[in-house]
Amino acid sequence: MTETNIQIFERLSRRFSSPHHEWMGFTLKAVEDEWVEVAVPWRDEFVGAPGMAQGAIIAAMVDVAAEYAIAARFGNPVPTINLHIDYHRPARPGTLTARGRVIRLGATVTTAEARVFDFEGELVASGRGSFFTARPSTKRG
Amino acid sequence: MTETNIQIFERLSRRFSSPHHEWMGFTLKAVEDEWVEVAVPWRDEFVGAPGMAQGAIIAAMVDVAAEYAIAARFGNPVPTINLHIDYHRPARPGTLTARGRVIRLGATVTTAEARVFDFEGELVASGRGSFFTARPSTKRG
Amino acid sequence: MTETNIQIFERLSRRFSSPHHEWMGFTLKAVEDEWVEVAVPWRDEFVGAPGMAQGAIIAAMVDVAAEYAIAARFGNPVPTINLHIDYHRPARPGTLTARGRVIRLGATVTTAEARVFDFEGELVASGRGSFFTARPSTKRG
Amino acid sequence: MTETNIQIFERLSRRFSSPHHEWMGFTLKAVEDEWVEVAVPWRDEFVGAPGMAQGAIIAAMVDVAAEYAIAARFGNPVPTINLHIDYHRPARPGTLTARGRVIRLGATVTTAEARVFDFEGELVASGRGSFFTARPSTKRG
Repeated sequence: MTETNIQIFERLSRRFSSPHHEWMGFTLKAVEDEWVEVAVPWRDEFVGAPGMAQGAIIAAMVDVAAEYAIAARFGNPVPTINLHIDYHRPARPGTLTARGRVIRLGATVTTAEARVFDFEGELVASGRGSFFTARPSTKRG
Repeated sequence: MTETNIQIFERLSRRFSSPHHEWMGFTLKAVEDEWVEVAVPWRDEFVGAPGMAQGAIIAAMVDVAAEYAIAARFGNPVPTINLHIDYHRPARPGTLTARGRVIRLGATVTTAEARVFDFEGELVASGRGSFFTARPSTKRG
Repeated sequence: MTETNIQIFERLSRRFSSPHHEWMGFTLKAVEDEWVEVAVPWRDEFVGAPGMAQGAIIAAMVDVAAEYAIAARFGNPVPTINLHIDYHRPARPGTLTARGRVIRLGATVTTAEARVFDFEGELVASGRGSFFTARPSTKRG
Repeated sequence: MTETNIQIFERLSRRFSSPHHEWMGFTLKAVEDEWVEVAVPWRDEFVGAPGMAQGAIIAAMVDVAAEYAIAARFGNPVPTINLHIDYHRPARPGTLTARGRVIRLGATVTTAEARVFDFEGELVASGRGSFFTARPSTKRG
């Protein structure tokens, strides 16, 4: 029996209680067939240079959105193998949103991508990550 | 007249007062000819999965170490064009350290790399970033 | 007056005469509103390990598809700032196809992505690149 | 008994007979404790834009140098998981050289980096790749 998007949403929401995600203020906003959406309300602590978020905050959006896109389909927490983020424009103060989507779900390695938007829906960054999705018996390098 | 490493250390330490860097707990540890070193004491809020830091925290280490390696030589805050991080092993609780080094200082784009170590000096991740180092007159894309 | 996709196809086809693209065997297959498609017939010289293409061949597919996705809209040859490729499965002998799509067209930096398929339409790799799209007056780093 | 660098050089030279490497013109130049060096004589077919190599050629240099840095220590051909290349300046006609170095040799994933130089020793690009180094029993994703 396949989980519905509502069931996936409920399952992922419970897992959104990791100390990191609570600290950053991540909330799960939506689970659709193709993507999941996460959001983070603005905090003044995100400011790296006057009027814009530090690149690391945007990297966190890509990491978490990609991770949850995978968790929606794979079900387990997965270690990140690598992460790549392209910055398109400065991220101004306001709620940040990211949509994550699986590119390819593999037996060992799964790749997902994410797009990060500012409060007006402008694309501020996009990126992708590879995650280790081998079953527990396979030891990680 | 060229700045000495001590003068660079003092200049960068003053700039380490960005809201993001204070929030994360970044401190500048050393400025050498070839690299700069930053550190972040462990916080339980870094935990993404039991016993290890969220990948985003490590991405922040790479971003900030690369940024300061560039700031040591370029002098201005620089916007990130992109960031790439490879994760080598789980980052366990304990102070995290990163060494950043400029790979190539360019007129428009500068590339720097960083290595992230745990409290026992084990390499947990490495990565690189490109930053926009054109003079203010050049508008960013 | 805006170019039609047919006009773009004809303009790009003429530019497909670079020594590199001829040597590799690249041909432009389609120009759509959202993406462009390029193809390369298999050559035994692509073999890196028995029965599969060297990763560098797939990197070329991503580079060229992304480049032409940008050329379709920007009109000039553009230097690559960086390139990132994720490999999903071995690329077996047979014509390789790649679809390139612009993620964000910027004044200075433009980012595009590409997906690479084998002769049966299986996704073998995907990736992205940033390209320098500043007007000639801006000197490159 | 550990292989000497001369023994590694001889072993890798024999493996340099892959169709791809012969086609591109790769030769192994040196094996040192820390790095391996490969070279490719210039071909007019490398030209992507007037007077400079296509980015894909440089990507091939990074891929192959990283692959051989790993082969020097791991001994087996290894599939590429991903590849990231930063372009620092246009690669002009003349022999291209790349030095590859292992960043971390892991049980499942190994990361290596490479720097690409033109005929005058100018750094034209640098990058890194992750390769799958699990023993054959582990199926690839």
